[in-house]
Amino acid sequence: MDERMQRQIDFILTVDKEKEIFRQTYLADGSRRENDAEHAWHIALMAVLLHEYASKEVDVLKVMTMLLIHDVVEVEAGDTYAYDYEAQKTVKEREQKAADHLFGLLPPDQEQYLRGLWDEFEAYETPESCFAHVLDNFQPFLLNAFSEGKSWKEHGASDANIRRRNPKTAKTAPAIWALMEDMIRKNVERGLLQHEETPTTKH
Amino acid sequence: MDERMQRQIDFILTVDKEKEIFRQTYLADGSRRENDAEHAWHIALMAVLLHEYASKEVDVLKVMTMLLIHDVVEVEAGDTYAYDYEAQKTVKEREQKAADHLFGLLPPDQEQYLRGLWDEFEAYETPESCFAHVLDNFQPFLLNAFSEGKSWKEHGASDANIRRRNPKTAKTAPAIWALMEDMIRKNVERGLLQHEETPTTKH
Repeated sequence: MDERMQRQIDFILTVDKEKEIFRQTYLADGSRRENDAEHAWHIALMAVLLHEYASKEVDVLKVMTMLLIHDVVEVEAGDTYAYDYEAQKTVKEREQKAADHLFGLLPPDQEQYLRGLWDEFEAYETPESCFAHVLDNFQPFLLNAFSEGKSWKEHGASDANIRRRNPKTAKTAPAIWALMEDMIRKNVERGLLQHEETPTTKH
Repeated sequence: MDERMQRQIDFILTVDKEKEIFRQTYLADGSRRENDAEHAWHIALMAVLLHEYASKEVDVLKVMTMLLIHDVVEVEAGDTYAYDYEAQKTVKEREQKAADHLFGLLPPDQEQYLRGLWDEFEAYETPESCFAHVLDNFQPFLLNAFSEGKSWKEHGASDANIRRRNPKTAKTAPAIWALMEDMIRKNVERGLLQHEETPTTKH
């Protein structure tokens, strides 16, 4: 096996650990938490089905590839819950370090390509990265709603938390945001999400 | 939510069950079996990294989408181990029935698109489906080799089993097959794979 293939296989085997990074979100049936690999599979598939809702046309292959690797750094930096504001303070630094090491396992051209997509996702500016964020937020939102708000209740999550987490969702995918707004309202009524009387981020 | 989006969300929540379909293969560290969603994530990512080894150029988006849904029918038909020849006898019928139902949840255009990719994968004829099969076989092969042949030993798998399972791998991705042949030989020497003295499928 030449060095190029060796590097590719090393990366493939290293990221196998994503299957052991468990998130706060439960499966739709509430039976257990899901892990990063399962989450990435789910949202990559959602990209295929839902990209028609992006307000700006997106390169679907780019969105999918970005989603497949967007959590890869958690293999070394761990999962940081969206609403754990303490851990969020150090997450950037921990994840940059992991990205340097993990993408550095690859041959240089593939390191550059995947690191570029990961940086683009993190920057949250391009149509593809904005749409990738919509799916990255919408999927756990759906699973939370369908598992009786199990993770929301554990963390005392509120409607305002979700709105703060989705500053660009309304612009990026209006129909998905309309559905989320409707579901937020219903889940507040059901008592699964708390209602917080703070001004929300403008859309 | 209109009917189209309702159908898409129904499909997305139904296939969440792929996370609960456990395969025979263990994670690379041997700690537990992997499930279909994790496997699909892993091979879709491998498609990004390894498509350069396909002897005929492949449409990577098509390969990835095919891989993300190739096991979806197991949500209703269960997982059938590659080397369980008894269960293999009824697998086609069980999986066709599941495909009719599951892809039928989608809006008609997306049903046609994903069912088409699933049928193409099953037919194992086009460059994309042949390359998708390479990855579908190579990934558990890698995990088996790196988990000390745990699943191979449980099932008494042999070198000939693997060759029969890979009738087109040598033609579809020669460099990957060369690596697999080398690893098969080493794993027979290590006693993790049995050696079977039967004529193998021609390549």
